[in-house]
Amino acid sequence: MIRVGIVGASGYGGVELIRLLASHPHVQVANVYSSSTEGEWMANVFPHLQGHELPALEAIEAKKMSGDNDVVFLATPAGVSASLSPQLLEHGVKVIDLSGDFRLESADVYRQWYKHEPAPEDLLSQAVYGLAEWNGEQVASARLVANPGCYPTATLLALLPLVKSGWVNPHSWIVDAKSGVSGAGRGVSLGVHYSEVNESIHAYKVGQHQHTPEIEQELFRQSGTNVLVQFTPHLVPMTRGILITAYGQLEADVTQNDLQELYLSAYEGKPFVRVRKPGSHPRTKEVYGSNYCDIALHLDERTGRVIILSVIDNMVKGAAGQAVQNLNIMFGWAETAGLPMVPLYP
Amino acid sequence: MIRVGIVGASGYGGVELIRLLASHPHVQVANVYSSSTEGEWMANVFPHLQGHELPALEAIEAKKMSGDNDVVFLATPAGVSASLSPQLLEHGVKVIDLSGDFRLESADVYRQWYKHEPAPEDLLSQAVYGLAEWNGEQVASARLVANPGCYPTATLLALLPLVKSGWVNPHSWIVDAKSGVSGAGRGVSLGVHYSEVNESIHAYKVGQHQHTPEIEQELFRQSGTNVLVQFTPHLVPMTRGILITAYGQLEADVTQNDLQELYLSAYEGKPFVRVRKPGSHPRTKEVYGSNYCDIALHLDERTGRVIILSVIDNMVKGAAGQAVQNLNIMFGWAETAGLPMVPLYP
Amino acid sequence: MIRVGIVGASGYGGVELIRLLASHPHVQVANVYSSSTEGEWMANVFPHLQGHELPALEAIEAKKMSGDNDVVFLATPAGVSASLSPQLLEHGVKVIDLSGDFRLESADVYRQWYKHEPAPEDLLSQAVYGLAEWNGEQVASARLVANPGCYPTATLLALLPLVKSGWVNPHSWIVDAKSGVSGAGRGVSLGVHYSEVNESIHAYKVGQHQHTPEIEQELFRQSGTNVLVQFTPHLVPMTRGILITAYGQLEADVTQNDLQELYLSAYEGKPFVRVRKPGSHPRTKEVYGSNYCDIALHLDERTGRVIILSVIDNMVKGAAGQAVQNLNIMFGWAETAGLPMVPLYP
Amino acid sequence: MIRVGIVGASGYGGVELIRLLASHPHVQVANVYSSSTEGEWMANVFPHLQGHELPALEAIEAKKMSGDNDVVFLATPAGVSASLSPQLLEHGVKVIDLSGDFRLESADVYRQWYKHEPAPEDLLSQAVYGLAEWNGEQVASARLVANPGCYPTATLLALLPLVKSGWVNPHSWIVDAKSGVSGAGRGVSLGVHYSEVNESIHAYKVGQHQHTPEIEQELFRQSGTNVLVQFTPHLVPMTRGILITAYGQLEADVTQNDLQELYLSAYEGKPFVRVRKPGSHPRTKEVYGSNYCDIALHLDERTGRVIILSVIDNMVKGAAGQAVQNLNIMFGWAETAGLPMVPLYP
Repeated sequence: MIRVGIVGASGYGGVELIRLLASHPHVQVANVYSSSTEGEWMANVFPHLQGHELPALEAIEAKKMSGDNDVVFLATPAGVSASLSPQLLEHGVKVIDLSGDFRLESADVYRQWYKHEPAPEDLLSQAVYGLAEWNGEQVASARLVANPGCYPTATLLALLPLVKSGWVNPHSWIVDAKSGVSGAGRGVSLGVHYSEVNESIHAYKVGQHQHTPEIEQELFRQSGTNVLVQFTPHLVPMTRGILITAYGQLEADVTQNDLQELYLSAYEGKPFVRVRKPGSHPRTKEVYGSNYCDIALHLDERTGRVIILSVIDNMVKGAAGQAVQNLNIMFGWAETAGLPMVPLYP
Repeated sequence: MIRVGIVGASGYGGVELIRLLASHPHVQVANVYSSSTEGEWMANVFPHLQGHELPALEAIEAKKMSGDNDVVFLATPAGVSASLSPQLLEHGVKVIDLSGDFRLESADVYRQWYKHEPAPEDLLSQAVYGLAEWNGEQVASARLVANPGCYPTATLLALLPLVKSGWVNPHSWIVDAKSGVSGAGRGVSLGVHYSEVNESIHAYKVGQHQHTPEIEQELFRQSGTNVLVQFTPHLVPMTRGILITAYGQLEADVTQNDLQELYLSAYEGKPFVRVRKPGSHPRTKEVYGSNYCDIALHLDERTGRVIILSVIDNMVKGAAGQAVQNLNIMFGWAETAGLPMVPLYP
Repeated sequence: MIRVGIVGASGYGGVELIRLLASHPHVQVANVYSSSTEGEWMANVFPHLQGHELPALEAIEAKKMSGDNDVVFLATPAGVSASLSPQLLEHGVKVIDLSGDFRLESADVYRQWYKHEPAPEDLLSQAVYGLAEWNGEQVASARLVANPGCYPTATLLALLPLVKSGWVNPHSWIVDAKSGVSGAGRGVSLGVHYSEVNESIHAYKVGQHQHTPEIEQELFRQSGTNVLVQFTPHLVPMTRGILITAYGQLEADVTQNDLQELYLSAYEGKPFVRVRKPGSHPRTKEVYGSNYCDIALHLDERTGRVIILSVIDNMVKGAAGQAVQNLNIMFGWAETAGLPMVPLYP
Repeated sequence: MIRVGIVGASGYGGVELIRLLASHPHVQVANVYSSSTEGEWMANVFPHLQGHELPALEAIEAKKMSGDNDVVFLATPAGVSASLSPQLLEHGVKVIDLSGDFRLESADVYRQWYKHEPAPEDLLSQAVYGLAEWNGEQVASARLVANPGCYPTATLLALLPLVKSGWVNPHSWIVDAKSGVSGAGRGVSLGVHYSEVNESIHAYKVGQHQHTPEIEQELFRQSGTNVLVQFTPHLVPMTRGILITAYGQLEADVTQNDLQELYLSAYEGKPFVRVRKPGSHPRTKEVYGSNYCDIALHLDERTGRVIILSVIDNMVKGAAGQAVQNLNIMFGWAETAGLPMVPLYP
């Protein structure tokens, strides 16, 4: 059994890792770390974990962590990963980082969108962007994986085949994204206050969300094309789920059938991407609690546009699930190990 | 007091009219009609109305209705208004129709998008499209008002100033719309089943929603420009509220300030449109239960686009409230008569 | 027009007072006060108020407040009212206090359940408990009204006729209460964090909620009987609404008809209490946004118990609405002035 | 691998069985049956199952079913199980029935509460009531298991230790139950219409719910005491989860510690019952998607009552999960086989 450490275990990302790893055949959650609740038992912080055996929460000390784990998941706020990772990597511990710290290759772009100091260049250059379906080979040999953001995951899986096809005007992409509230984490604020969020919907960070450059960077890396993405996130009164509605202006004369074949071929053999039948309108509920990304393609002949619908569970494929998928790839296990293959419905 | 009749009083549109007219200073709800619950008391169908004096529900008979009312609201399914209206109009009864039957001037377009037989041409030509802020003068002298659809109301108020300005490429408009479930009415179906809708979001009728031609028609009527709108509705797990996120590609060199001035000037003196400050992200909750439409403008210099956010309560400004506003205009009363001016919050 | 001041205007209680008073015929909201947002405009704190004319938020200074208002509503946290009220009362300003500070006549009981220092005895003795349907006469001549708590309002209106009847064992009462989240106010905490509350229900403060002695005190005051109430509140994933399910063991041989007559007679002429028909199951939605309390009575012959269902909107009849009702009584206006008589549905 | 058949696979109970059995180590879902969607693929009825291999839905024919399965789950409406079971049992197929048809031993009681014709006496006498924690031995040798109802499961696990202790007045029990909407199944009706249910709570079937006699019967069977239960169900605006708040009048002089020990001892070695620490208020969310029942005990010395809080996921421990638990016991497998041991949070 591989010894796994989870840093940030008292947040939603950490606790979702624990849920998934609990039924993983090759892994033992050996250590859990938290800056705020050191010495506590997880079941005191999260009563739903009562009866599930876990060690007590420990303080975050890179040196001790290095000896106690084979791999460490970092489910930490922006800025923490850069200071923790070097010592872990030095001691041969593999690192899967769920924060945004290692996702952008350009320090300048990070500084501009995150308003934080970026990680050192040498770390950034080691990090492999863990979009498992597209970067699987690099992930397999990676020591440091930058686990993709929730919005970028749903967006990239939806756009990449078409962006690579060249059929769509690369400056025409509009991504209208809708997310449940758990994506904002467990920290309290008026923005996640029940009475403010319930029975309401609103957009936020129009034109300014830090996942925008992450999306554009990966579209470029995979396709060699400079793509300009208009990205607008919205907060939806639900706990889990992301829906992407993406609009692209077609420049080629293609049919619905062409689109289906393009996507079926791109995702052949990928267990977690389900290309839905023509005319489908995937619901976030249809991937609830699972690592799936469901994608539907709509060709609107009247407007010459393709509209792509893409849904994930932001806590799973958008965070902890994809992290486990990357773990599986890094250790050569079945890609689906430990990941539930039937969503919770209804 | 003007005698008002409400047809379709056992649906959500009808019952919202009753709520609003209850505090209207010039109106008495004299008669309520329903095809399904004739002879019943409203308080038996809707217990929240207990204690509120209303006549018993009557069967729908055009002749009797003509003698008993000065104005009739039709909150009926597609196809009913066309058969009821002629006799009412003949007897001098004014008609405000909340269905889609009189909104499209072209019978062919109606047939294509509604998959129903359209109303006769002579009726269509009499109908005034009741977008109060833009068609007020015609409404004032109208005998038959086609009350706008919920999505078109939020969309047209958001787009019209910019479409008329000529600053935006008229073929670039993308309208990503999000609606609460009450817009689907009170009829039962799997599509409004709680466990299917709760904790989930999905798009529907991509490229095919019947409000699309209504939007394009009115944009053309007001601006003289042929506008092509990509319209995508979504179902959000909440009861009330519509949010429009609209995207237009700028062709003019404008500033955020230009946008603000354009809208402030367009809606000066309009009590129900609130142009929000730069940087705002209006929430549907901020117009809950009221007749407001709140609009925020975002200029994204990186992409050259304007993003417009527009929120309404679909049951009020998107249906019954705008109908009352039209009533007020038709009878020369204060435009705000009977309409609550402070939303319910939270 | 009477000049009204609202202290705590940046909380949910304050903002609901503003909504209701906006359509009040005899009142002008002359001043709004807040400790945290002095100098701000209400529309900046609450964008839903944009366009509604209100003065800027002022700091809380008892002396200045005394000269500027005829009546002051205190929608403040525990402990504030006791220090503010004396000066206001001295200057002839009437005070309606929405906090719990003046509700309990016994300082000891307050100390025990609230874990705060109680208000001085002379203030406590002046305060009239503002359960409008039962204490109307005293409210009419009161200078200081202690506006009832949300749970006590729904509970007392449900229990009082039966407690006074002597038909029920006074030690058998069990009150199982369910509330929406807005009752917890606008302050942020994990307890009102959306992702923690949504799609879940739980009890809290079992056997220890501070509304328990308030309920028992008023049952005693009105009936002369010592009543022991088992009170259990629950948090329900919704914003507004309280449902009380109350259980009493019958000691008299009564019929459903007797129960109906008892309640119909007790609430005859009371515009805000609606006794529902036998077999009814009132929904909180059926009083949404209104000042109603709907009550249904169920006689279970198998168990010899009466089960009472009682629903209110916690923000209206449970707080701001009842405060306005008390204002109306204090000034001799129609009891319903300014209060909407048709709930928002759905 | 044991061949399993699921009847009623197009309902929520059926689809939850499929989710759980998908990760069961000893079982293959060999056949799925539905009266309404014969010939269809499950993934067409439930898109969340796309990619999960299942046979096509077959019509319900007892004879063919007998040859094709080792065990059959009946997730069918009232009345169906009685006609299907005899032939299955005759051919040696084990039957686990999720309907209420075999739960009541008295045909008269069934007739009175269900308003249906009961199953034949010889079938009723064969059925073992599958409350796994209390009837495990009988389940182990059963051919026909009556899987308990959702409310009875949460109630019985909460009450049984105390009822058996004799510490509580057996006629004093009041069970105030709160359930999510999925318990009502997938059939459409106004009662599960989103806009009617959302942002509202109400009681239903006060004094008349058919789970009442099931609860009383099992309390008697296990304790030999006639217990009278006042049972009131409520509909809560959430999809999954049941919370029981139970009240019993103590007749013995016991401490909180006595209560804890009583329950810890009763459920020692039972993997799915978690007795929570004193002062706990379990949330339905804390057992979401899992087979747990979490129980907290509150002793109120002021009133002499014990208040028990008990939460389950109605679709899992209240239906499909407990059915799988029973399957495990019947076949001698680990009781937890196929059942996820970490709830989904948040």
